[in-house]
Amino acid sequence: MSDRFFHPVSGMEMPRFAGIPTFMRLPHVPLDHPRADEVQIGLVGLPWDGGVSNRAGPRHGPRQLRDASTMIRAQHGVSGMRPFEAANCADLGDVGPNPVDNPDTLRRFEAYFTGLKERGIRPLVAGGDHLCTLPVLRGIAKDAPLGLVHFDSHTDLFPAYFGGTTLTHGNPFRSAVEEGLLDPARMIQIGIRGTMYDSEDRDFAKAHGIRIVTIEEFFDRGVKDVMAEARAIVGTKPAYMSYDIDFVDPSVAPGTGTPEWGGPNAYEAIRVVRECAGLNIVGADLVEVSPPVDPTGGTAWLGASLMFEMLCLMVAAL
Amino acid sequence: MSDRFFHPVSGMEMPRFAGIPTFMRLPHVPLDHPRADEVQIGLVGLPWDGGVSNRAGPRHGPRQLRDASTMIRAQHGVSGMRPFEAANCADLGDVGPNPVDNPDTLRRFEAYFTGLKERGIRPLVAGGDHLCTLPVLRGIAKDAPLGLVHFDSHTDLFPAYFGGTTLTHGNPFRSAVEEGLLDPARMIQIGIRGTMYDSEDRDFAKAHGIRIVTIEEFFDRGVKDVMAEARAIVGTKPAYMSYDIDFVDPSVAPGTGTPEWGGPNAYEAIRVVRECAGLNIVGADLVEVSPPVDPTGGTAWLGASLMFEMLCLMVAAL
Amino acid sequence: MSDRFFHPVSGMEMPRFAGIPTFMRLPHVPLDHPRADEVQIGLVGLPWDGGVSNRAGPRHGPRQLRDASTMIRAQHGVSGMRPFEAANCADLGDVGPNPVDNPDTLRRFEAYFTGLKERGIRPLVAGGDHLCTLPVLRGIAKDAPLGLVHFDSHTDLFPAYFGGTTLTHGNPFRSAVEEGLLDPARMIQIGIRGTMYDSEDRDFAKAHGIRIVTIEEFFDRGVKDVMAEARAIVGTKPAYMSYDIDFVDPSVAPGTGTPEWGGPNAYEAIRVVRECAGLNIVGADLVEVSPPVDPTGGTAWLGASLMFEMLCLMVAAL
Amino acid sequence: MSDRFFHPVSGMEMPRFAGIPTFMRLPHVPLDHPRADEVQIGLVGLPWDGGVSNRAGPRHGPRQLRDASTMIRAQHGVSGMRPFEAANCADLGDVGPNPVDNPDTLRRFEAYFTGLKERGIRPLVAGGDHLCTLPVLRGIAKDAPLGLVHFDSHTDLFPAYFGGTTLTHGNPFRSAVEEGLLDPARMIQIGIRGTMYDSEDRDFAKAHGIRIVTIEEFFDRGVKDVMAEARAIVGTKPAYMSYDIDFVDPSVAPGTGTPEWGGPNAYEAIRVVRECAGLNIVGADLVEVSPPVDPTGGTAWLGASLMFEMLCLMVAAL
Amino acid sequence: MSDRFFHPVSGMEMPRFAGIPTFMRLPHVPLDHPRADEVQIGLVGLPWDGGVSNRAGPRHGPRQLRDASTMIRAQHGVSGMRPFEAANCADLGDVGPNPVDNPDTLRRFEAYFTGLKERGIRPLVAGGDHLCTLPVLRGIAKDAPLGLVHFDSHTDLFPAYFGGTTLTHGNPFRSAVEEGLLDPARMIQIGIRGTMYDSEDRDFAKAHGIRIVTIEEFFDRGVKDVMAEARAIVGTKPAYMSYDIDFVDPSVAPGTGTPEWGGPNAYEAIRVVRECAGLNIVGADLVEVSPPVDPTGGTAWLGASLMFEMLCLMVAAL
Amino acid sequence: MSDRFFHPVSGMEMPRFAGIPTFMRLPHVPLDHPRADEVQIGLVGLPWDGGVSNRAGPRHGPRQLRDASTMIRAQHGVSGMRPFEAANCADLGDVGPNPVDNPDTLRRFEAYFTGLKERGIRPLVAGGDHLCTLPVLRGIAKDAPLGLVHFDSHTDLFPAYFGGTTLTHGNPFRSAVEEGLLDPARMIQIGIRGTMYDSEDRDFAKAHGIRIVTIEEFFDRGVKDVMAEARAIVGTKPAYMSYDIDFVDPSVAPGTGTPEWGGPNAYEAIRVVRECAGLNIVGADLVEVSPPVDPTGGTAWLGASLMFEMLCLMVAAL
Repeated sequence: MSDRFFHPVSGMEMPRFAGIPTFMRLPHVPLDHPRADEVQIGLVGLPWDGGVSNRAGPRHGPRQLRDASTMIRAQHGVSGMRPFEAANCADLGDVGPNPVDNPDTLRRFEAYFTGLKERGIRPLVAGGDHLCTLPVLRGIAKDAPLGLVHFDSHTDLFPAYFGGTTLTHGNPFRSAVEEGLLDPARMIQIGIRGTMYDSEDRDFAKAHGIRIVTIEEFFDRGVKDVMAEARAIVGTKPAYMSYDIDFVDPSVAPGTGTPEWGGPNAYEAIRVVRECAGLNIVGADLVEVSPPVDPTGGTAWLGASLMFEMLCLMVAAL
Repeated sequence: MSDRFFHPVSGMEMPRFAGIPTFMRLPHVPLDHPRADEVQIGLVGLPWDGGVSNRAGPRHGPRQLRDASTMIRAQHGVSGMRPFEAANCADLGDVGPNPVDNPDTLRRFEAYFTGLKERGIRPLVAGGDHLCTLPVLRGIAKDAPLGLVHFDSHTDLFPAYFGGTTLTHGNPFRSAVEEGLLDPARMIQIGIRGTMYDSEDRDFAKAHGIRIVTIEEFFDRGVKDVMAEARAIVGTKPAYMSYDIDFVDPSVAPGTGTPEWGGPNAYEAIRVVRECAGLNIVGADLVEVSPPVDPTGGTAWLGASLMFEMLCLMVAAL
Repeated sequence: MSDRFFHPVSGMEMPRFAGIPTFMRLPHVPLDHPRADEVQIGLVGLPWDGGVSNRAGPRHGPRQLRDASTMIRAQHGVSGMRPFEAANCADLGDVGPNPVDNPDTLRRFEAYFTGLKERGIRPLVAGGDHLCTLPVLRGIAKDAPLGLVHFDSHTDLFPAYFGGTTLTHGNPFRSAVEEGLLDPARMIQIGIRGTMYDSEDRDFAKAHGIRIVTIEEFFDRGVKDVMAEARAIVGTKPAYMSYDIDFVDPSVAPGTGTPEWGGPNAYEAIRVVRECAGLNIVGADLVEVSPPVDPTGGTAWLGASLMFEMLCLMVAAL
Repeated sequence: MSDRFFHPVSGMEMPRFAGIPTFMRLPHVPLDHPRADEVQIGLVGLPWDGGVSNRAGPRHGPRQLRDASTMIRAQHGVSGMRPFEAANCADLGDVGPNPVDNPDTLRRFEAYFTGLKERGIRPLVAGGDHLCTLPVLRGIAKDAPLGLVHFDSHTDLFPAYFGGTTLTHGNPFRSAVEEGLLDPARMIQIGIRGTMYDSEDRDFAKAHGIRIVTIEEFFDRGVKDVMAEARAIVGTKPAYMSYDIDFVDPSVAPGTGTPEWGGPNAYEAIRVVRECAGLNIVGADLVEVSPPVDPTGGTAWLGASLMFEMLCLMVAAL
Repeated sequence: MSDRFFHPVSGMEMPRFAGIPTFMRLPHVPLDHPRADEVQIGLVGLPWDGGVSNRAGPRHGPRQLRDASTMIRAQHGVSGMRPFEAANCADLGDVGPNPVDNPDTLRRFEAYFTGLKERGIRPLVAGGDHLCTLPVLRGIAKDAPLGLVHFDSHTDLFPAYFGGTTLTHGNPFRSAVEEGLLDPARMIQIGIRGTMYDSEDRDFAKAHGIRIVTIEEFFDRGVKDVMAEARAIVGTKPAYMSYDIDFVDPSVAPGTGTPEWGGPNAYEAIRVVRECAGLNIVGADLVEVSPPVDPTGGTAWLGASLMFEMLCLMVAAL
Repeated sequence: MSDRFFHPVSGMEMPRFAGIPTFMRLPHVPLDHPRADEVQIGLVGLPWDGGVSNRAGPRHGPRQLRDASTMIRAQHGVSGMRPFEAANCADLGDVGPNPVDNPDTLRRFEAYFTGLKERGIRPLVAGGDHLCTLPVLRGIAKDAPLGLVHFDSHTDLFPAYFGGTTLTHGNPFRSAVEEGLLDPARMIQIGIRGTMYDSEDRDFAKAHGIRIVTIEEFFDRGVKDVMAEARAIVGTKPAYMSYDIDFVDPSVAPGTGTPEWGGPNAYEAIRVVRECAGLNIVGADLVEVSPPVDPTGGTAWLGASLMFEMLCLMVAAL
């Protein structure tokens, strides 16, 4: 049971459109706060998009996700779980990037998550672009590679962009595998689609035994069947969940920089997370929400809803 | 057969983007109009959102629904019904709310619908937030409780908000049951989903025998099966249809104040109404369309399309 | 194999958001260009909407489709085809309309496509409203009527609008049949829905043996089954594909002038084209994209993605 | 004093966001209405943009102007005039265009205004593009040429567009002068600016003695001085006022098809009309409001405010 | 000199687009915070719009003003004042309204500001609609009426709306005068314009000696002259500043519910506040910012900039 | 006189909304084009925003500026100059950045402009953020420092950001002075305003003799007086003009990343450039247009209009 200090502000006392927007109306507990060490699951923003190859915008993701997340209520509609009562959750705030220097930003982020790991706080991250996942993994998976459930329309397994750099959102999972942060045998990538530059990413996956489920296979087999395989691959050892909002169809989630048509609808987008019940999720992220191209704010609201689903998984895994 | 006076303006003579926008291009027949007593089905706007607990906006719903509705043509695409030729339909105009006083507004609305009932005009209402349904029912269901087909993502069965009030859009159906306006044994609520404050609404439903179909059950069983049950529950006695646009997935209907992800698509949203063919629908509403958060106007266009479907049901039930 | 001159600009050298936007980053090769005669498939814009009966906007379609199309990469994600290496493709530019004179515009367009036919360049057209299809067919199908795969929510088979004219986007396919440009026995129209003025279009279809698949039949049977029938009807003789973006559900493609709710999702919208593999597509168009009502640009991005699918069909048919 | 029948709906009884939107909440009195002959000033919509050379949209102008105009109250803020009490004003509705045939549309419009003239109803027109002014003048100025106060960033005095046509919004005032509908010696055009095709329009003005006040002269001399000259030129004989919303700076009025930067601000935009007090304005129009490019609706709201100013001038001239 | 605890987060460490958005990046110090009693100037949000007579939206004002305010830097560009170093400023959070009950909300707000007054914290309020000013004044001006500098396009001095209520944003200053919270002899209202229902407000002003400067007078005399008079009227005794964002021209500040064209530009909007240097401002508010109709967020950014100007006045008056 | 090859596409043959959008409809002449060496003034896009400290977006500037620029006509409205006939102007295309590596991007840009200088092509640059100016100057001013007319709301003279880097849009002019690319005695910065971090930039300006005209001085003295001083300072030796769109008030130009309220209106924004007639402008840029926050596209249209003004200056200086 969580301490009352960690309970969200009630919508009955302060309407949900009101108040300073922290993630899910949780208390803001930066790491220098006296109660920081009581936090079990820390919601963290990584306001950066220095790795995007196309349209920028995810630097504004954490703030808009916080704003949308104040519509989250106390109880899961299907399972009945009340996560904020079950564990000490808090909004840890954002980690400051260096907006004009990617290597410096990656160092800052890695140092932060190394610190979280040392305190025993499990991170639920709001990106930022997908390059943000790399320093999170560097912080929390140095000692033992993690399994991965990865929802995305792109593999992000490319070797290099723009004449040689790997510091883009098209490369992080290749880097993570090469650095030993992820166990390729326990990795699954779901929802892959769209036109391709070439086949280098899929060749890498094949060579390392990474399971790729294309969107065609996803729709042919259905959510239940695919996710059963995902659970089997990832197993019961510690795993990470990385959710790129462009996994979802752009009709549902237009607010992202590199959308690809033909993805899952909102119901499927939520169910794939729920079907991960039982997995040992020790960290998770929701990335690539880009407010400047999200005129209704709906993408952020979906992102916040997905973060709640992931939070419930993480609470169950404590 | 309807009188020519009640036929809509033709799109061949006045293009559909032109002309003063009344509902479906019907004549504007306020109650003091000489031909008001010939009206069989009256389309009425309730431009008010005093009951919303989150984002305001539905006060602008009737006007935008009228604007969108001028794209409706004469004939139903599947059944072939030509409702404007089959019955005298008219746009009765809006009922004026008191924008800063909910009790006064409810009194005004109730008096209006009591008057309609006395004249024998059946109402097809364009909201307004869901609290608007309550005074409609007070006006038309005082003598005998009605059955209810209710499409929504929320049950709106809560006992109180904000420290005790029941005058919000989260409470009307509980009030209506408690006031004897609806017969709980002939009520079905379809599409319920999203995070919850607690379980008070579902406890009330269980205690009164109100049937709730969650979105999970809806998708598992499919439209046909669920709607067959709906028809069986509601039966052939007079019934009301209340359609909250947030029943539909926010990718389809973003223009609403409290969207919940994971709802039906547009085809399903339309089909659930069509599957009510045969029910004895004596009144209906389409509520919670919020133009300020509907950048393309698509939500209003869907709302107008649904009003046409409901109108066809009501014409058939005359 | 195509000549390097005809290869698109690489996203690795010039990021996809940069550069003058031609269709799919292909070279701009107007007909007076020295290499114009080497072009096998010409992408052409028809920036005109003089035929719309409701909201204007498709005049801006070609430019926004070009802009969105710079996100297309080199390789098809499922088939692996690399169309720009397989055939000489080029952006031929736009054909200039007379914005205030429909008959003059139709003459200009017809003359242009007659010229393309003479040079042996197959057209992939970006509209423009659906009236644009008529002068394309007049240019390329004079000698022998073509088969037609037509995706749309409307039949566009009406006899006349606004007191007698046929120069609207509601009439082109009737005109084309009457002029012998299309073989009605090899025509199929898929996705038809929405309210109707009357039944004149369907009577015409019945009288001429044109196959109409309503959206209800489409969803009941599924993509595979319907498209198998389409392939059987169209056969292996030369055929044209006309894709009105309003075939797709407005939640996916809001950017169009006469949307009708209840259409296919994005995955289905793409798959119906892929399922035409094997057809002998000698010309195609994507019409009715209306940028002024497409706030996220998503409709154009879907349109560009569909043009890529059609291009792959046309390359395969060379 | 006007009859109560012609008084607008009160905002105290029906809030200004509510009700079917007629111009300034006046009664809808089409010409076949029993009280049509009592109307002194008729507000008319011309929902058409067939004359635009660039972006379409003004076909939606009348409807959005009506919507915005419901915020107009009863009394002029400076003069104290209460125009709706001083004269019988009414919303006559729209005149239906033929959306695909400019010559036919011009005939329809001309016939309508010829009819108004015969009934003695003075028109206050909401466009539509600027070509709409021509048929209004043909209807009301056949017997005697009118003076003209013309606010615009373009002269609209060009001889021909697109290879010979004069049926565009760049030509109407040249046509009107050539047809003897306007007296060039009593014409003034104010606010002219922007890049030019060539000098043909200015040569025509010079040859006919039409006074052009460029925006540079306008700002150098100031509103009072320029408008004193305007009053002197136009004199006390019957005159028409034509107000193209692109007269105003695009920061104030972005919702128009051919904006030119560097125009008057809103205060100046209003004052130029007020400074015409004393002129004998027998007809007026407000044109080129284009809702699809007016995201806040502010351009329409300014347009409605200007129509109110013009209405006060017309009432004073009765 | 302020304590470091009260310094804003630096944009050099945490970029200005990042971090949980408090007002001007100040620490969040709710009244139960251990350091609350050290606060000298408290920035407070009143997220409510229950008093609007037209379009809702200001309930979202405080949150969007916070978001925009993170672009405020440390030093005033003209005076060089560094207010956050000169006084202890903090974000006190929002006061929770009862969204469906205006009387209850007014009680809650009044109690809050009564408490602030007792603690000696001076309020800088972010509305909310203009009715919010009334409970602020009830909280801080009970003992002695304050002077008032009031920027607005409306007087808000009306006696009643909608059949008798005074609980709208059109009435608060009349109520405040009648309750003895404001000294009418030390009141000035600047910027008044727009159409009028009638003259009841101006009659009240005249009867009580309240100075009204219409926008015509404002532009004729200029900022310096008008503001010199304002300083003379208000004098050196304690005064309140109330800034309705609709004072500013809608081209600058479209994001408000009842805009009136013809107001000051942004430079003038800022200068009128600066010209109040020397006044003894003990409380202030910025009201009527309505995010749903502010597509670029610019209105909130102007509002935040004005709050910074007002803050500098309040710091100077400590 | 220019060669016909270099004339823009005529709006009479291809309407201005149509055609592949190059700058001002000029021919696209990349540097490997056979006629590249005939170009006198080259319009170049720098699609990059790697230097922004706040909101990203200017990477999309060149494409949107091209799109808007197709509304530019052949002749200057005041001077009558027909620049495209007076000199060979062309669209050189974009220079490709490395989106994730600022130092690499700066090298690419510098190399490009060094090449232009060698060919004798004078650049008119469309940014991109303000950091883009630095590599342009490195390319064209290596041999002799240039004078500078700089319109902006910020000095961009800061020493470092984010812990030490100078690679942001807040530093380029300090770097350029320190590198000897600009002659500080011939520099003037006009329009400076907004809150400040500190005074380091102004101290640098004072120390080097750079003239800063704050917005307060600008409005107090007026355009003519300030620009006379600017001409005197810059003199007749070669000079560069750098125009940050945030010089202009955000009501006019909302589409930029770091807007500051209280700037010039559109007429003043244009006139300051015209008042530079006679200066020896050998290169110029228009930077910081950010399409994602420019909902109407008006900012780009103003930017294109300003580029036309600058082009006329550059043509006169040939």
